[in-house]
Amino acid sequence: MSLLGIDLGGTKLAAALFNENGKILLRSKVNIGYRKGRDVGKLVTDQIIFMMTSAEKQGDKISSVGLSVPGISNSRTCTVWAPNIPGWSDYPLLAEVKNITGEVPVAIDSDRACYVLGESWKGNAKGCKDVIFLSVGTGIGAGIMINGELLRGSHDIAGAIGWMALSRPFESKYTECGCFEYYASGEGIAKVTKSLITRDKSYTGVLKKKTVDTIDSHDVFSAFENDDPLAVRVIRQCIEFWGMAAANLVSLFNPEKIIFGGGVFGPARKLIPQIRQEAIKWAQPVSITKVVFDTSGLEGDAGVYGAAYLALKNLH
Amino acid sequence: MSLLGIDLGGTKLAAALFNENGKILLRSKVNIGYRKGRDVGKLVTDQIIFMMTSAEKQGDKISSVGLSVPGISNSRTCTVWAPNIPGWSDYPLLAEVKNITGEVPVAIDSDRACYVLGESWKGNAKGCKDVIFLSVGTGIGAGIMINGELLRGSHDIAGAIGWMALSRPFESKYTECGCFEYYASGEGIAKVTKSLITRDKSYTGVLKKKTVDTIDSHDVFSAFENDDPLAVRVIRQCIEFWGMAAANLVSLFNPEKIIFGGGVFGPARKLIPQIRQEAIKWAQPVSITKVVFDTSGLEGDAGVYGAAYLALKNLH
Repeated sequence: MSLLGIDLGGTKLAAALFNENGKILLRSKVNIGYRKGRDVGKLVTDQIIFMMTSAEKQGDKISSVGLSVPGISNSRTCTVWAPNIPGWSDYPLLAEVKNITGEVPVAIDSDRACYVLGESWKGNAKGCKDVIFLSVGTGIGAGIMINGELLRGSHDIAGAIGWMALSRPFESKYTECGCFEYYASGEGIAKVTKSLITRDKSYTGVLKKKTVDTIDSHDVFSAFENDDPLAVRVIRQCIEFWGMAAANLVSLFNPEKIIFGGGVFGPARKLIPQIRQEAIKWAQPVSITKVVFDTSGLEGDAGVYGAAYLALKNLH
Repeated sequence: MSLLGIDLGGTKLAAALFNENGKILLRSKVNIGYRKGRDVGKLVTDQIIFMMTSAEKQGDKISSVGLSVPGISNSRTCTVWAPNIPGWSDYPLLAEVKNITGEVPVAIDSDRACYVLGESWKGNAKGCKDVIFLSVGTGIGAGIMINGELLRGSHDIAGAIGWMALSRPFESKYTECGCFEYYASGEGIAKVTKSLITRDKSYTGVLKKKTVDTIDSHDVFSAFENDDPLAVRVIRQCIEFWGMAAANLVSLFNPEKIIFGGGVFGPARKLIPQIRQEAIKWAQPVSITKVVFDTSGLEGDAGVYGAAYLALKNLH
């Protein structure tokens, strides 16, 4: 018996075959490239067929399939909304996958939900019942586990923490992505940096030497490491936002652990003590003493592990 | 078979005997006055004895007791922390009550948890599985129901929304009670008003005529009704904070309904359309279209109803 975990991201699709103890037996990875709509669906089903065939060759059989998607899995309509895949506003992924898996059960959930599932199965949330995965990459989302169960909300949209209101008054630039995400996501870091470079004519640092449009969060972190004053300003502001957001999760959910993951953590891993200092100022004073701030134990693999655990849970 | 619901507040203790359909058979109310420590415990047990005796006289028997407390009910130590009752930092209320109820089961929970339970049993959250009671009185707390179950957190402290970080940078005045509560609780409204009167020497409105120390939130609402400019400024700022906090609940929990309750809603009931307008700016754009903003259906009785429902749930 083996489990198939599929992690569909914004740019690539990763798949891994697991035994039921969570050992990876086989991996694959393909780029999505410029595919859209049904071509992305076909990429997914092709990978599943490839993995099913590979398992059969080993005398094995996939007994359950889990998929992590970069968006929302609507449990009522069984369709997927994925804002970064053109044509996936209401995509019938479950039906397409079931078409090829037949009797084998299939489960789909959002990437943020899969991240916290993966960490709770094989990562840094093992043994935790109340734990939150704060995913900071291009965007920001939170996978929230309460008493061992995923928080879904009334329409499967829970955990949209990128929309958290943290800085008043409202500004129209928050409309597209939310206030927290505007300042403290990977894309936000680049955006804020570009806007500061344009405004601050006196700045002559290393980021000024780059073509402003090409600056990304990695450039900003690398400048931050070298004490570039503009990068220091941007990242200090991020620490404030990450601390406030973490504090709000602590006051509302009273979790055992918050895991900081996604591409930005990554380079922001070493900032966790400073984020905690900021959170201590704001949070419910007892709850903050009970929570551990940690980083991902699975990093880029959190999605496939989570998808496989989704498959395992769907089996029982 | 009847159920006893006890609502211990900061200033009074209310008790009500219910039949299992939620009809109130008998009520009582006593002031706590200047009691502290064990004397408050005795007030509770005396009320229970009175209700047990009254039920017996009617040939009835109380089959379960529920208590709502103004603080935290620690499910591990079975003790209560209630910041406004002197001597109740770790009070063995459950043991004291069980001493007199014998075989009859007893359950204790925080007031915010009981409010949402009460509304879901007999108030404006009937039929809701994902619903939040935002209680704005002297302080601010949230009773959060997820898929029909109370959110407790790892140490029973979930829902401490008064600590929500909403206005950066951090100011030391938030240390005592949290940022949201500082601005937008009943006590916060009075505090902000007093500080504005002291600072704004040009203000000559109706609130200036009062002894500044005696001003409470009712005075501010009454001045607001009469377009007093300082009161308008304070309440508009509250609308901004209530809207931001509600937006954050919507983005994180994707609830069906948020119920605004507590003493302040009350006079702030009519502001809900404006609060919703503010929340729409900030919240996850799909989730905000799925949520209803409502007021309490039970008002001052939410606590006794919730305590009785706690008793009923403890029985099954």
